[in-house]
Amino acid sequence: MNRYIIKFSYDGHNFNGYQKQPKKRTIQGEIEKALRKIENKNVDITASGRTDAGVHALNQVAHFDLEVNIEPDNLKKALNSLIPEDIYIKEVDIINSNFHARYDVKAKEYIYIINQGEYNPLERNYVYQYNKRLDLTEIERALKYLEGNNDFTSFTSLDKEEKDKDCIRLLSQTEIKRDGNKITLVFLGNGFLRYMVRNIVGTLIEVGEGKRKSEDIIDILKQKDRTKAGKTANPEGLYLKNVFY
Amino acid sequence: MNRYIIKFSYDGHNFNGYQKQPKKRTIQGEIEKALRKIENKNVDITASGRTDAGVHALNQVAHFDLEVNIEPDNLKKALNSLIPEDIYIKEVDIINSNFHARYDVKAKEYIYIINQGEYNPLERNYVYQYNKRLDLTEIERALKYLEGNNDFTSFTSLDKEEKDKDCIRLLSQTEIKRDGNKITLVFLGNGFLRYMVRNIVGTLIEVGEGKRKSEDIIDILKQKDRTKAGKTANPEGLYLKNVFY
Repeated sequence: MNRYIIKFSYDGHNFNGYQKQPKKRTIQGEIEKALRKIENKNVDITASGRTDAGVHALNQVAHFDLEVNIEPDNLKKALNSLIPEDIYIKEVDIINSNFHARYDVKAKEYIYIINQGEYNPLERNYVYQYNKRLDLTEIERALKYLEGNNDFTSFTSLDKEEKDKDCIRLLSQTEIKRDGNKITLVFLGNGFLRYMVRNIVGTLIEVGEGKRKSEDIIDILKQKDRTKAGKTANPEGLYLKNVFY
Repeated sequence: MNRYIIKFSYDGHNFNGYQKQPKKRTIQGEIEKALRKIENKNVDITASGRTDAGVHALNQVAHFDLEVNIEPDNLKKALNSLIPEDIYIKEVDIINSNFHARYDVKAKEYIYIINQGEYNPLERNYVYQYNKRLDLTEIERALKYLEGNNDFTSFTSLDKEEKDKDCIRLLSQTEIKRDGNKITLVFLGNGFLRYMVRNIVGTLIEVGEGKRKSEDIIDILKQKDRTKAGKTANPEGLYLKNVFY
């Protein structure tokens, strides 16, 4: 029995998110379907975490165990020939059987892309189209208030399940970059709650528009109340960029 | 009655090409469906030319006549709210009733993008994935043999309809550019036959691989025989970039 680690990318647009669900097209479901053909029985894969419907990944990571003995390079080829074209296995390696793709995560990097230029139908599933003027200096200030060890209850989902969790996370680094008409927000942290990046981006957009002040973030964090923060930004602008172990 | 000119872009991936066909999803079909709602009767639109299934347009141009009197800016808004999100109307203007979007074309610019880097599922419908090594200097030489007033019979489709046509076209300018792992081929000419750019690109790839020599182009052109040229390159790398009047 070998434990394998895979690094993979996907276009989230045509998936009902990463996590497998009965009768729905999911990234996990498609990879496990391919592995079943290789192992001749069910294989469970464990990713660094799930991504929601429409969210993309440039370097997602997962592990799984196989009884079949197969060279990493051959497994990479076999998997890529069996999975649909909107997923791509970039790397396959054999790893210590103690390695766990979720528990061992040290940090994750997400990026969120906003297009302020003219709507481009070819990019419609890959950027969030937003044409109102945004004050990037104010957004950058707001980002600084979010950095550090904070209770992100106000920025997570309203699911009962999530509410009972410990919502303290370290957002270690943030950044805002402009490249032509595109704005990229970068978030590096030790863990992210469900919808956390999209709820933060939705709130930052309201800050950029002048509907909220950057220092309002302090109060939103303190209140630990989801209704105090802004809307959930669309999934198409969000990318899981890197997972660090 | 006003004649309108529109400039529009589209993601060709989910269309059966530009030209309307019964029961098929086409770009022309979708725009005419929207215009029918505005004019309350059928409206025929005439584009600079058709594009095939999977081929994209950044600045396609078309004209049509409306009895309804509507400001160009309002028509732009109305059309964009009625058409699907994989088409976008970028500009609308009223133009002289003698203007003809196909007959008045002076030149067209097509680009073809080849990705030589790692397969990226997010770009799978927007670049042609080709990982064999290509000799760009040889391709550039081949491009030079294609420039000028030539009979492009060897590079057009085998359709009976096309075969009877005059196949002399002026390919006035070509270019090959590398940006990281992406290669862009640029074609500027006074007119393009069906599949002409894709047949040229398929042949250029064979030149780049060393299967043919750049000077073979001279002979391929001379033979006026489609079977002498290379394969038709995939549609997903092709973009109608500009139409000049």
